[in-house]
Amino acid sequence: MSKKVLILPGDGIGPEIVREARKVLSCVNSQFDLGLEIDEQLVGGAAIDATGKPLPDETLAAARAADAILLGAVGGPKWDSIPDFAIRPEKGLLGIRSALGLFGNLRPAILYPQLAHASSLKPEVVAGLDILIVRELTGGIYFGQPRGVRIKEGGVREGFNTYVYDENEIRRIGRVAFEAARARNKRLCSVDKANVLEVTVLWREVMIELSAEYPDVELSHMYVDNAAMQLVRAPKQFDVMVTGNMFGDILSDAAAMLTGSIGMLPSASLDVNGKGMYEPCHGSAPDIAGQGIANPLATILSVAMMLRYSLAAPEAADKIEAAVSQVLDQNLRTADIMSAGMQAASTSEMGDAVLRAL
Amino acid sequence: MSKKVLILPGDGIGPEIVREARKVLSCVNSQFDLGLEIDEQLVGGAAIDATGKPLPDETLAAARAADAILLGAVGGPKWDSIPDFAIRPEKGLLGIRSALGLFGNLRPAILYPQLAHASSLKPEVVAGLDILIVRELTGGIYFGQPRGVRIKEGGVREGFNTYVYDENEIRRIGRVAFEAARARNKRLCSVDKANVLEVTVLWREVMIELSAEYPDVELSHMYVDNAAMQLVRAPKQFDVMVTGNMFGDILSDAAAMLTGSIGMLPSASLDVNGKGMYEPCHGSAPDIAGQGIANPLATILSVAMMLRYSLAAPEAADKIEAAVSQVLDQNLRTADIMSAGMQAASTSEMGDAVLRAL
Ligand SMILES: CC(C)[C@H](C(=O)O)[C@@H](O)C(=O)O
Ligand SMILES: CC(C)[C@H](C(=O)O)[C@@H](O)C(=O)O
Repeated sequence: MSKKVLILPGDGIGPEIVREARKVLSCVNSQFDLGLEIDEQLVGGAAIDATGKPLPDETLAAARAADAILLGAVGGPKWDSIPDFAIRPEKGLLGIRSALGLFGNLRPAILYPQLAHASSLKPEVVAGLDILIVRELTGGIYFGQPRGVRIKEGGVREGFNTYVYDENEIRRIGRVAFEAARARNKRLCSVDKANVLEVTVLWREVMIELSAEYPDVELSHMYVDNAAMQLVRAPKQFDVMVTGNMFGDILSDAAAMLTGSIGMLPSASLDVNGKGMYEPCHGSAPDIAGQGIANPLATILSVAMMLRYSLAAPEAADKIEAAVSQVLDQNLRTADIMSAGMQAASTSEMGDAVLRAL
Repeated sequence: MSKKVLILPGDGIGPEIVREARKVLSCVNSQFDLGLEIDEQLVGGAAIDATGKPLPDETLAAARAADAILLGAVGGPKWDSIPDFAIRPEKGLLGIRSALGLFGNLRPAILYPQLAHASSLKPEVVAGLDILIVRELTGGIYFGQPRGVRIKEGGVREGFNTYVYDENEIRRIGRVAFEAARARNKRLCSVDKANVLEVTVLWREVMIELSAEYPDVELSHMYVDNAAMQLVRAPKQFDVMVTGNMFGDILSDAAAMLTGSIGMLPSASLDVNGKGMYEPCHGSAPDIAGQGIANPLATILSVAMMLRYSLAAPEAADKIEAAVSQVLDQNLRTADIMSAGMQAASTSEMGDAVLRAL
């Protein structure tokens, strides 16, 4: 039976980078005879413009029907001033994550040796960096109820959100992280703020309970403020980190930026069965949208992750990753990773180079 | 009328570093004839050990009576396993902040030219770094109600905390930040997660309203995940940053670590009248406690901040800061900031060197 891939270009540079990734996907689709059916739908600001909603019913239905989803990016200043909080590009993304139960977010931060100079950190601090951040993606303060802005006595406005996790949600993401650590260097650091927040006291308790099932994995705990410091000071001390939705948002972006080449980093968001949505770690970069200078490699590498995790096509994934590495070896660089002596490439030139390498 | 300074050594390296800072304070007290009365009390784990409570009534009364407080640090593994969440060293610190209304937390991240090599970032990225993080300290998710761990249907444990701010709290910290920016380079970046959290939508709204009163200050907004990235990528783009309690905890620690010399960074926590608690940015470092190798300079520089902000003795503050700089110029270094060719100093040797320079 043929498998379905849904492509959601989204906003900003989303359409440009996804276009290149789609070329790559089509190429391996025929090379490996994968029989993938590829569909495309609107999400985010583009969907608001066309339908008034960030996540149209048609898009959600297609997402449910798909075996895997490739997303570009959502959001931009154009939609920032929409007063109705429910009609924002981000709600499209959050809506898919939640509706499809994509709770397991894998965000690798890997430094490509060819791009070592791009980091703002000293080479010895980041050379060989390879860490994986596992972020819970469908719970925590992103989705907690109650939430809103209300008027208190005296007409005073008050905003509130709820940071909540139950033990099942924690255990579920904990397993993803322990399994990932088991397949890597067997060290897992759970990040919380258990000295202040009760919800993360429970988080820590459940991680400790779970560790009994993974005696081969070394579990440690770190407060989130210290984790942010340690990522800056000595990121190579980490193998796998696991944390909640909000802390994961912050730490995974910081970790990605350590590499200096966030334009290279893919991510996966998985449900319990391995169905997933794949997207670059970077955002929609509205400031450079439409100029054809965005780096499509993170999205192309997201296709590789998709083939490996959701489409049971690991050889195709390997081949794409090798092609990307080869293109870097050919000294081709988009503007974000450009350096002296390298050859400038546009978004589509980069995509075409990967195709040639395939 | 004589002014009162309360010293709270706390836990871990707290007593060692505070001892040196006290010597410095006593020295300027007589040099400048400040007439300060200096008292000392227990807080944190040390107070738990002695009285069973992290913030004994006597300590709280002394804190209320004081014009300024100097804190070492609290916490350590010894007290991590206390099951009662109300009896933890951190509760002593949080209790003072809250009881005294010390809502305005100023955390400078400054790179001392003598210590430029200590940073894990490339010199050109951090040379001359001088940013100020203004963190709200008595509200937000640290103090929000309801909070706790409860048992749901089916016996499932659930942890929850509440992230809440009203417009008055936001306006109050906003003013501190706008004033600070006005006295510096007139650029203020407010950090929120207004694309996801309603409480920070209100935060952003109030900051925008407030900016009408500060037309000379340029206000910008940044999502917290992007702020974490930008601190790693190009920290010198910032002048003053303002954010809530939790984001401020994370970002100020990351910013401090950019300098590579967190052992050098003081902080102030102020109430509406300028009364304040002063403490180093670093923690209690239980792993090196009692060895006499901790860096006392952040605590000594906290004394300088205290003299400037709460004790109306700016000349004494200037003199301490100049003395610290002089000691660095003499190439004296504690272990945390040691480098080739420099002269090793213990905690007390460093304190004595500052005294000599005074
Ligand atoms: C766009 C935004 C809602 C999203 C998030 O905060 O989760 C993004 O920052 C991410 O990390 O995928
Ligand atoms: C010790 C802890 C409660 C405290 C905090 O989180 O506020 C500390 O990390 C700080 O930043 O002063």
